[in-house]
Formats: sequence, C-alpha cells, structure tokens
Amino acid sequence: METTGRQIYMDHSATTPVDPRVVDAMSLYWSEVFGNSESAHSFGQEAANALEQARQTVADLLGCRPSEVVFTGSGTEADNLALRGTAWAARQSGSGNHIVTTPIEHPAVGNTVDQLRDLFGFEVTRVPVDGTGLLDPDDVAAAIRPDTILASVVFANNEIGTVQRMVKIGQVCRERGVLFHADAVQAAGRLPLELDDLGVDLLALSAHKFYGPKGVGLLYVRRGTVLVPAITGGGHERGRRPGTVNVAGAVGLAAALRLAEEERVAEAARLRRLRDRLIEGVLASVPDSCLTGDPKLRLPHHASFAFRGVEGQAVVLDLDLEGIAASSGAACAEGEPEPSFVLEAMGLPPDWSIGSLRLTLGRSNDEADVERVLEVLPGIVQRLRACG
Amino acid sequence: METTGRQIYMDHSATTPVDPRVVDAMSLYWSEVFGNSESAHSFGQEAANALEQARQTVADLLGCRPSEVVFTGSGTEADNLALRGTAWAARQSGSGNHIVTTPIEHPAVGNTVDQLRDLFGFEVTRVPVDGTGLLDPDDVAAAIRPDTILASVVFANNEIGTVQRMVKIGQVCRERGVLFHADAVQAAGRLPLELDDLGVDLLALSAHKFYGPKGVGLLYVRRGTVLVPAITGGGHERGRRPGTVNVAGAVGLAAALRLAEEERVAEAARLRRLRDRLIEGVLASVPDSCLTGDPKLRLPHHASFAFRGVEGQAVVLDLDLEGIAASSGAACAEGEPEPSFVLEAMGLPPDWSIGSLRLTLGRSNDEADVERVLEVLPGIVQRLRACG
Repeated sequence: METTGRQIYMDHSATTPVDPRVVDAMSLYWSEVFGNSESAHSFGQEAANALEQARQTVADLLGCRPSEVVFTGSGTEADNLALRGTAWAARQSGSGNHIVTTPIEHPAVGNTVDQLRDLFGFEVTRVPVDGTGLLDPDDVAAAIRPDTILASVVFANNEIGTVQRMVKIGQVCRERGVLFHADAVQAAGRLPLELDDLGVDLLALSAHKFYGPKGVGLLYVRRGTVLVPAITGGGHERGRRPGTVNVAGAVGLAAALRLAEEERVAEAARLRRLRDRLIEGVLASVPDSCLTGDPKLRLPHHASFAFRGVEGQAVVLDLDLEGIAASSGAACAEGEPEPSFVLEAMGLPPDWSIGSLRLTLGRSNDEADVERVLEVLPGIVQRLRACG
Repeated sequence: METTGRQIYMDHSATTPVDPRVVDAMSLYWSEVFGNSESAHSFGQEAANALEQARQTVADLLGCRPSEVVFTGSGTEADNLALRGTAWAARQSGSGNHIVTTPIEHPAVGNTVDQLRDLFGFEVTRVPVDGTGLLDPDDVAAAIRPDTILASVVFANNEIGTVQRMVKIGQVCRERGVLFHADAVQAAGRLPLELDDLGVDLLALSAHKFYGPKGVGLLYVRRGTVLVPAITGGGHERGRRPGTVNVAGAVGLAAALRLAEEERVAEAARLRRLRDRLIEGVLASVPDSCLTGDPKLRLPHHASFAFRGVEGQAVVLDLDLEGIAASSGAACAEGEPEPSFVLEAMGLPPDWSIGSLRLTLGRSNDEADVERVLEVLPGIVQRLRACG
C-alpha cells in the first residue's frame, strides 16, 4: 500500500498545530485590539480587558484565582520562574538552600537546578526513580531536610510518558512545609489539572503542547507564594513577569486550554485505544523491543520504546522517509546522539537506551496511522540492525 | 469640528498595531508549518528552515551574522539576557564585578542592574545625564574601572526620546575593553541600526515596537561574547535562550523589521515634520510648558512635554475622553502617580516632572491628528490647572 505523500504526524509531545479555532480567537489582537495592556487609554484598556478575560478563563479551568495566573513567554520560562523565583526568595529571607527534584526532569528544570547549584551555591537532591520512571513519595519525604525550600517534579515525563503520583507527593510536601512545583507541560489537555486536588504551589504549562501558539506559557502561583522575579523590568503580571504582555498569545493559550479541557476526556479515551494498539503491535512485531516508562501510569497519547542495538535517531530519520514524524527520546537536537539521561536514570543499559523511539498521538491521528507505523517500523529496525 | 468617534492613537512608543503584511507573513506558521524547529523530521525541518530564513533576514538588516541573532520572548528578556548573561559569565571567569549604566534606563535594564546589585553583589555606577537626558561619553570613560565588565545604555529613551551618542560611547568601551550593551527597543525602525557603526557587543529589540507581534524580542550577541543563559533549559538558540522557538513570532519580527527598514527614511522624515509641528504648537499654546529631552538628538516620532502643576496622568485620561491615546512619562501603570525618575535624573523639579505627557507618532497619524491634539490639549491643561 502506497502512502502517496500523506504525512503522518506522531510527535505531539514535541509540539502541536494551532487549532484553527485558536487562530480565529487570536486574530482580533494583532492589528485591531493592539494596545499595550498597561496603557491607561482606551486602546490599552481594551487590551487589558481581553487579557483579564483570558486570565479568568484559565483560572476557571484550573480552579484557581485569576491573580494566581502568570503569563510567561514559554513553559521553560515558567519553570525558571518557579525555581529561580522561590530559590532567590529563600535566599533573601534566609529560609533555606536545598532543592529536591528528580533525575528525569525536562532540561527546563534539570538545567536550572544545575545552574542554581553550580553558579549560586544551592544544594540539590535528585530522588531516584524506579525502572518505569516512577518516584516513590516516601523517598521524596526522606530527601526533604530542614533547609529544603522546594520540591520540583515533572508531572508527566516527556520522554517516557510516566505520570507521577502527584497527589501523594504534594501531601508529603505540605506536611513538611516545602513548596511543590509541578512541571505540567506534557500533562495539560491530557490529564486532569484541578489545582486543589494536586496540592501544588506552582505549576507550569506551555500553550503549544495543547494546540495553542508557541511563545506563550503560564505559571500558576498559589496565593502567598513569594517569588523574586527571574526576569526583571516593569510591573506587569503583578510584578512577577515583566515585559509587554503578549495579549494575542494569552488569548490563544486560554482558548486552547478551554478546547483541550472540553475535549479531554473523550479525546484521551480515543488516544488511549490507539496508543494501546500501537504498543501491543510494536512489541509483538519488533524483536528485542521494550516499552519504556510505566505501562499503566502513563500519558494517554504516549508510546515510547527502546530497541536494543539500534540508534533511535536513525529510526526517526527512516520513519521520516516514510512520511511518519516521530522522535527519539535522546535529546540530541544538535550533534551526536547520546544515551538518554532519562533512560539511564531508570537503569536501562546503554545498548538499549540509545535506541529510544517516541510516538505521541494527537488529534490528527487515526487507526490507519497506527497501522501504517506498524507496517513500516519492524522493517526499519531490522534493516538498521542488519547494517549496524 | 466634531471628531464623531474617530480615535487617534498617538502612543506608538508604548506599542504599535501589527502590520497586516506581518500578520500575513505569520499566517502559515500556526497550523500548517507548525513543527518544533528542533525536531529531526520533515515537519521540524520545515519550521527550522523558516526560522533560519527569519534569522538571515534580521542579520542582513542589522549587518551581522545569523549566528549572532538570538530570538527571545520580549525586549525585556533580551535586556535581561544581555545583563545577567554577561554578569554571570564574568562571575564564572572572575573577570569583574562592576556595571556602568545610566539613571534613565527602561526598568528592563534599571531593575535588572538593581537586582544584580542587591541580590547578587555586583557593583553598579549610574553615570549622570544632563538636563536634556544626554550622557557625556567622557563621563562614561571616567566611570569605567579595572573591574568593569559591561556598560549598558539606552540607545533612545522611551520617555523623553533623547538619542545617545552611541558611536562615541562604543569607542570608549572598546578602548577600555568593556562590553557595550544597547537597549535599542525604541530605536528600531526609527534610527539606523548598522551594528558595526554602533560598535555595540549586545543590542536588544522588541518586535511590537515596530509593527510586529508582541511576545518576541531579539538580542544581538557579537561573536565571541560569552553569555551564561539567564533562563536555562534545552539547547535552543545555540544554548543561549532555551524553550521551543516561537517560529511565527520570529518570522513576524523579521518581516516587521524588513518593512520598517524599507520605509524608515521616508517615514522618519514624515514623522519628524509632524513632530516638529506638534512640539511648536504645544509650546506656543500651553503656558508653563516645556519640551523634555533633547530638542535635536531625539527620536523622529517622539514629542514629550512637562506641564507645571498638572498631573500627566490626568491629561492622558482627559485626552482619552477626546479620543486621543497618549501616555504620561510617569511609570504609574498601577497605583499612585509618582514623579518620573527619568525627569528627576535630568534635574526637573517635582512640580514639573509629575506633569509629563508623551505623544509618539506613527504610521496611522497625519496632520489632522496633530491639529486635533493642538485643538484640545491647551483647554485640558487649563481646566486641570483651574481644578487643581
């Protein structure tokens, strides 16, 4: 069966197309309602009204107050504000110097705690994960010290899809009086995000992961949480994030989150069925393959594998030649492929962890897409092994 | 003569509407070419190609290498990266601890050097300005010490429009081996920005000041300038600015800068004529008024005044009732009006500096707009003085 040019996008954890309804929602805010939301005049107030409406929409969806929503320029910036903001506030108040996190954080968190440690003298403990990438809440409790200021945990891992037991970890943090930050960039639109249930103090999202625009993120900041701004400037976002607010972006994020939430339960069920067929099919047809991440506690759209003795990046490029967009877990955006630090933290040996493949489903995918992957993937792996 | 609802926007230094041609240029990058520019597959490479084309366009316009262009989430973030990036690099290498700047910087620079001083122990010297807001390059030279790492100067001040003698200041910095950062957010599209002539090592821009979208800025980083990223995460933008790149925003910035540069000379001449008529008319018709900033070394679109004994914010609100959008120099986005720190640094007494009005012209303005302002402004000031 020929694909005759039809492309299959199966990399929805990397990014998603902007929903046309979101494009429509933003369209008024380029050239018509264009004021600076800080301006006192009517052009500014019109923009401010749109911004506050977007903030209210987000607050309603997350179950928080509008004043607890800070728009940022990306999910990465939101994570940075959570970590730097609480670290520097703790330094100012002398309340502590220690951060608890995991070895499987996205670099937005992982590299930030490293910089806080190496350049600014904070201490960092990374609580180990088990073979499926799961954190034991008791281990988090054991890592907390009297000088711990914050625990930062990736809600759902981008590479292996494992979903942490956030409610329990949140309870541990509350009992010990430690702030709790969730990097929820992969979770939005895929898992419930009711903030009070989660028990988080800080939570980061990124619009482009749920069919919103790139260049806009969000940090939820529980009332009373003191942050020193990580970027400094004007008094925007109640002094927490300066810079002229991207009103169109905020409107787009809110519209995308509303649509994602409205469609979440049905769409997650649909994707879970496709995902399970994909996992079952790959494991059955590719020898020396395994699922990475937790088989049950995982994102509904997320299938990730390791193939022994094959370079994941080579599989991605061969799939691309077949018109299928996937990714390798290994973060080798530039330069040489390296074994994934996430898979290493889970104890996977290097000859497996270099051969990581991630297939993340989304709105554009259907059963035919899954069958097409199952049709071509085993041959690709076989050929690469024969060449290797 | 009735305005019958026609609104006049005369606050182009606060923000500008996105040029419809820029909206068109961005339109492909929401739902069609939507890939993550770091992805290896064809969706990602298509996005990466668009991003690199935008980077090349910007580099051609500024006269630099594409690798010297870093896209950020705002002008504020670009300023923060310049200041934090060089400060932290200097701390790592032990090359110095002292920053030279001015008392009339935008808060993106002013509050950042304050945080670097108060929270991180850097030393800061603010070189005084004269009564028109001008810096003497000799004073900059005198402020540089053996441990100075960076001089940061606002190319053209947002509040008073004064344009600094950047070439001379740049020479001073080069002679003394000190990095030179220009906050050029107000200058883009209004003044020439050839980087080699300016002699800067770092230069910050913001797209929404020149008819591009909000939420995207740019930092020029001269080759060889070492920066420690101010936000940490993935390896995007050659490790200098992490976070999934806002491809549509970068394309929009590049398109807007190209249009602004193409039209700059003619448009600046047109606006300069309107501005001069506005300045002449206001000074002639409003008693106890003065121009703030330099009468000659000033932005071509920028008219700023002080009215003795009147609150600038009240003038702004009354102008708004007449359908005219202006701003007060005083940075009182929220809360009580305060005397402008810029005007205080220039030595203006408080009964003048509280009464600051900024009228910044742009593409939508014509002579009728200027005449309309001249028609209503004297009466507004007179009434406010009578009430005060």
